[in-house]
Amino acid sequence: MAEGAAARLRLAGLCFFLQLLTIILFAAFVRYGPESDPGLCSPQSNCSRRDPEPGSGYPRFRDAHLQALLGFGFLLAFLGRYGPGSVATSLLVVAFAVQWALLAQGLFYFSPKGKIYVGAQSMVSADFCTAAVLISSGAVLGRVNPIQLLLMTLLEVPLFACNEFILLSLLGVSRPSKIRLAAGLLPPASGPIPHPARVSCTHQISDSGGSLTVHAFGAYFGLMVSRALRQPRVDERGEQQDAGRQPDAFAVLGTLYLWIFWPSFASATTAQEGAEPWALLNVYFSMAASTLAAFVLSPILYEEGALQAAQLQDAALVGAAVMGMAGEMLLTPFGALVAGFLASHLSLLGSRFLSPILSSRLKIQDTCGVHNVHGLPGVLGTLVGTLLAGLATADAYGGRMESVFPLVAQGSRTASGQAWWQLCALPLTLILAALGGSLTGALLGTRALRSTPKSPERESKVLREVPEDGVNPEASDEELGGSTLA
Amino acid sequence: MAEGAAARLRLAGLCFFLQLLTIILFAAFVRYGPESDPGLCSPQSNCSRRDPEPGSGYPRFRDAHLQALLGFGFLLAFLGRYGPGSVATSLLVVAFAVQWALLAQGLFYFSPKGKIYVGAQSMVSADFCTAAVLISSGAVLGRVNPIQLLLMTLLEVPLFACNEFILLSLLGVSRPSKIRLAAGLLPPASGPIPHPARVSCTHQISDSGGSLTVHAFGAYFGLMVSRALRQPRVDERGEQQDAGRQPDAFAVLGTLYLWIFWPSFASATTAQEGAEPWALLNVYFSMAASTLAAFVLSPILYEEGALQAAQLQDAALVGAAVMGMAGEMLLTPFGALVAGFLASHLSLLGSRFLSPILSSRLKIQDTCGVHNVHGLPGVLGTLVGTLLAGLATADAYGGRMESVFPLVAQGSRTASGQAWWQLCALPLTLILAALGGSLTGALLGTRALRSTPKSPERESKVLREVPEDGVNPEASDEELGGSTLA
Amino acid sequence: MAEGAAARLRLAGLCFFLQLLTIILFAAFVRYGPESDPGLCSPQSNCSRRDPEPGSGYPRFRDAHLQALLGFGFLLAFLGRYGPGSVATSLLVVAFAVQWALLAQGLFYFSPKGKIYVGAQSMVSADFCTAAVLISSGAVLGRVNPIQLLLMTLLEVPLFACNEFILLSLLGVSRPSKIRLAAGLLPPASGPIPHPARVSCTHQISDSGGSLTVHAFGAYFGLMVSRALRQPRVDERGEQQDAGRQPDAFAVLGTLYLWIFWPSFASATTAQEGAEPWALLNVYFSMAASTLAAFVLSPILYEEGALQAAQLQDAALVGAAVMGMAGEMLLTPFGALVAGFLASHLSLLGSRFLSPILSSRLKIQDTCGVHNVHGLPGVLGTLVGTLLAGLATADAYGGRMESVFPLVAQGSRTASGQAWWQLCALPLTLILAALGGSLTGALLGTRALRSTPKSPERESKVLREVPEDGVNPEASDEELGGSTLA
Repeated sequence: MAEGAAARLRLAGLCFFLQLLTIILFAAFVRYGPESDPGLCSPQSNCSRRDPEPGSGYPRFRDAHLQALLGFGFLLAFLGRYGPGSVATSLLVVAFAVQWALLAQGLFYFSPKGKIYVGAQSMVSADFCTAAVLISSGAVLGRVNPIQLLLMTLLEVPLFACNEFILLSLLGVSRPSKIRLAAGLLPPASGPIPHPARVSCTHQISDSGGSLTVHAFGAYFGLMVSRALRQPRVDERGEQQDAGRQPDAFAVLGTLYLWIFWPSFASATTAQEGAEPWALLNVYFSMAASTLAAFVLSPILYEEGALQAAQLQDAALVGAAVMGMAGEMLLTPFGALVAGFLASHLSLLGSRFLSPILSSRLKIQDTCGVHNVHGLPGVLGTLVGTLLAGLATADAYGGRMESVFPLVAQGSRTASGQAWWQLCALPLTLILAALGGSLTGALLGTRALRSTPKSPERESKVLREVPEDGVNPEASDEELGGSTLA
Repeated sequence: MAEGAAARLRLAGLCFFLQLLTIILFAAFVRYGPESDPGLCSPQSNCSRRDPEPGSGYPRFRDAHLQALLGFGFLLAFLGRYGPGSVATSLLVVAFAVQWALLAQGLFYFSPKGKIYVGAQSMVSADFCTAAVLISSGAVLGRVNPIQLLLMTLLEVPLFACNEFILLSLLGVSRPSKIRLAAGLLPPASGPIPHPARVSCTHQISDSGGSLTVHAFGAYFGLMVSRALRQPRVDERGEQQDAGRQPDAFAVLGTLYLWIFWPSFASATTAQEGAEPWALLNVYFSMAASTLAAFVLSPILYEEGALQAAQLQDAALVGAAVMGMAGEMLLTPFGALVAGFLASHLSLLGSRFLSPILSSRLKIQDTCGVHNVHGLPGVLGTLVGTLLAGLATADAYGGRMESVFPLVAQGSRTASGQAWWQLCALPLTLILAALGGSLTGALLGTRALRSTPKSPERESKVLREVPEDGVNPEASDEELGGSTLA
Repeated sequence: MAEGAAARLRLAGLCFFLQLLTIILFAAFVRYGPESDPGLCSPQSNCSRRDPEPGSGYPRFRDAHLQALLGFGFLLAFLGRYGPGSVATSLLVVAFAVQWALLAQGLFYFSPKGKIYVGAQSMVSADFCTAAVLISSGAVLGRVNPIQLLLMTLLEVPLFACNEFILLSLLGVSRPSKIRLAAGLLPPASGPIPHPARVSCTHQISDSGGSLTVHAFGAYFGLMVSRALRQPRVDERGEQQDAGRQPDAFAVLGTLYLWIFWPSFASATTAQEGAEPWALLNVYFSMAASTLAAFVLSPILYEEGALQAAQLQDAALVGAAVMGMAGEMLLTPFGALVAGFLASHLSLLGSRFLSPILSSRLKIQDTCGVHNVHGLPGVLGTLVGTLLAGLATADAYGGRMESVFPLVAQGSRTASGQAWWQLCALPLTLILAALGGSLTGALLGTRALRSTPKSPERESKVLREVPEDGVNPEASDEELGGSTLA
């Protein structure tokens, strides 16, 4: 018990330090951008021409924040035995990751005044980053303590921002100033520059829903951290994936929230207002077909079992992940149906045949099955996006070509050239994720951070212990007395 | 167990076939409409004049989808003993119904090019249809297997679309072309025609919130299916309405979601932006008065019991259902208060006195009490709407007359003429629902589709079995008997 | 049992009477305002210039209603032993309070025609009022029966409206007509006047998020009611704060909903569209820092315990409460981080050291700890707002000065003058809350309303009794092994 108290005090100290650090950095560098302040938005800075209406970013922001919290939080609640503890830890990670992501992502877009300008759209980008962190933590859930999770967040967020910057802004163009010029901004010397979101840059690679930058990156990063953290004795117990006792209510809720909010989240960064229903509807179609596919393949693959609520959640996630890149590229609805249907089959086959191989041969424990739910569909989505980019024609896209493939619309690239760039982004992201994950895992695995191996399940519990008669009451221990349930 | 596996394999086969069929039909006929593609929206097609802004349909769409999923999904979770199984089946029904509804509803609005154009507003219409299917399934829950539910969806959706088309578009006008002309569209030969939602047609019968087309239709369709599927031995057990063991958390959540999202769902199709708060506020007032009425009448009708969370959910549903037609007609708030108050009393009286008669005399088992919650309030709402239509004057409505009663505004009808048409729609819908339901029930009851009668509760379980120890039981004490857990 | 039935019948009678009263008053006085009816919105009445777009009020309305229901309803579900009963009672209170608040708040803004005009923005104001009532009821939960709660609502709502009117409209200006003139409305004699929301008046005190008017008022009102209702024998049992058995799922859900919707609720009344992301983002930053602070201080203050889900909910609430007043005043994000961080520490210290003193010395039982979660942060938020008002300069605020401090922008006041007014509002609100609460508590404590003291827990149960193993586990069964529960 003293050990648990010591661990919590160390966590308290780390939280205090990280929050203090963030406050200092915010005080030094972060300001609200012009789109939040009409007084500063002069016609010269062209912010009205390029930026969304001040209030219009908000609904998508709320959905994105919700999605990051709920959709993945409930995915992490997938593991029953860790009870509400995993939800609390997720909240902690989210609360820190959002602040840290604003700083890290802002680092790549420093204005000449040396400030980072934030607005509603910055929060959307920060939420995409937080989503990737939650995906990664899904791979290691149950085998890391909260201190390790916070440090993983500290290291993963800048790597995510770096990868995102390379893919979306840099491939083909070397300096931020050129991006600003290309996007029609003023010369560097004049006025404040709002924090460029994924939308306002002339993006090089199109990945509005994050198939590659969020799902694939997050999944493979987490898998490499998991590999670096492998502990033979614990692994032999093989109990991490034992759902045990967590009510499936969380999985049900998570599924429903995914259906409600993910399509909005995924289309939060489509450039043009007119494109939004397109990408949005594609995601819904993909999720619907993916759900039906779960009912098709599950009875065949798992003979003794019936369908679980969590598998429906996975199906919804898969349908969403595969549409990340291709969502705004697909021109007809049936393509989304096909993509979702196939991705779900792939995910279920991977879960049945590939995960055991990963676990036994490559020693990669994957607690929440993020490889099947995010990794494989993310890669498939990238390949689909590549294919569609190669097939893009001005006739088919019409006015939308400029928002989806701006460089092709400008004539700087051909459609097949764009397709090659989209394809090159894949190994680049995978390498960055794998290297970053291995390094991070090595750091996290140092003796100073690791808890005593004989009680790993204590590590991830920050909440009061849950009695093991399969309910989850938590005693409150108010200073006014009452019983203590330990 | 082998039987269960065989049933799941048959379900898998049916899901595969249905999804393949849908993909093929989508590939052949469904395209994204002009309102999603500014490049195709030429001034000639007048789409900007009549259609909503590309992005503006979205928030209402999301609420509608949420309502279809949650509000009714949790209503179906009313029955405890079927655990998460009923939620999974609801998800399956929703995933298929949405696709099938888009096709079926689109069938009535084929463009000259032979394509169905979909946009965000089409999804709203599809969700109304899905809501009706879920209401119907509430009547037969626990007595049909998922295969039967899918086939019921397959048959009900076109009937719903047909009824909706008759009421909203046809009564008084015989051919779609005349609708397009009346609505100011181009002559048939030019340009694509977006999928007309409930909004853009010059609707004949005003039923924006679906009192008649959704609630009443869904309820009576389901009741007739239930009657056709009656099984004497199972009915004698009389246990379908025994809530038993399902945690009422679902009912609580469902109630809250209803309060949050249904008003938006119900006003999703009010034609004019200015009308939206009107209809919306009316629904809130109706739900508030309905909730208070539940506290008034329940202690009087049920002497041994106290109020259940599920009854509050029903009260909210009732308040919403009665406002479906009259929501945008009521000019003063107190009318909504009165309507909700009365509808809730009617529903509770029906639940106490009418349901036993339905069950014993007419042999209609109504698992979720959809007759009291949707049927009766839907009919009452239609009568209220009829009355209000007759009382409508240009002075009172002002500019809104054109959006609520377009033909009266144009002078093609008098107010009392409109009232007669509204009233005629009622028996028409009831007959269509009853006939369609009986036919569907007869088809579903064939030996090939029916499971072994001695284990009916296995039929609706697609999820892994839930242990029967120690969940959060709250007894429901329906008048149909069954055990009382006190 | 007979006694329980008699109590429920009395409650039924009271509900019937209150609903009838409300219907009559609505019929006599309440109409829909011009912003819902374009036909009545003539250019002369300037309603377009001052009022928000007809449909634009809606999204914030929905969030506000959701927050009132969920955020606080789940806070009230904090107490486990009262099971779903407290949620039902909350719903009852909300259903009535919303109607009553519309009437009470409308009373202060009677048009010359003697009517109260309601629109979407009126609902937002009504929801703020309902939120205050729910906060107050949190202080007395478990020690009042539903009849007493309804009567407390009946008395508190007019007092809330009075305090709100004084602070937001009157301080400095004596008559409503002058407000209308000051806000650019027509002379009293012409046209209908829409119900002025918190936004459209030239508000004297800036408190858009309700730090003072909602959180502080509600908390201290409830505490004084609690004090007046103290019962020695019950208090000695000291069991009110024993969470006992309620699944913390409600607390988790409440926390998530707070994160999602409160920022929108809090910024629902910021005057200008452009200001919205500003206030919104400040609330998010405040909540994030507040959450981290909970992890910092809890292990230090509570040595034997770990963090509870409910404490995370409180942390989120605290972060929101402190930003109520200052949300739209803070110009840089780090200020919000600091405010949230400090407020959370203050709340936890108050919970550890101050609550026992309140309970033992002042005889104030605080069931849900509303003093620490709403009272203290509300006061702190007011002091922060006062400080920021004093520091406000036209350079820093630019165009936003007019929306946040209109009188300072007009030149009627200096910044330090505004600061003094903001500060004077604090004791005024506290006195009104304390006096009103004491009076109300004295009335509620009369013998006629009080239930038999020996069975207090029966008092708040309106729902059917919940067995006292009362949790809701549902087993999930992974396909990768672990036990199969069949």
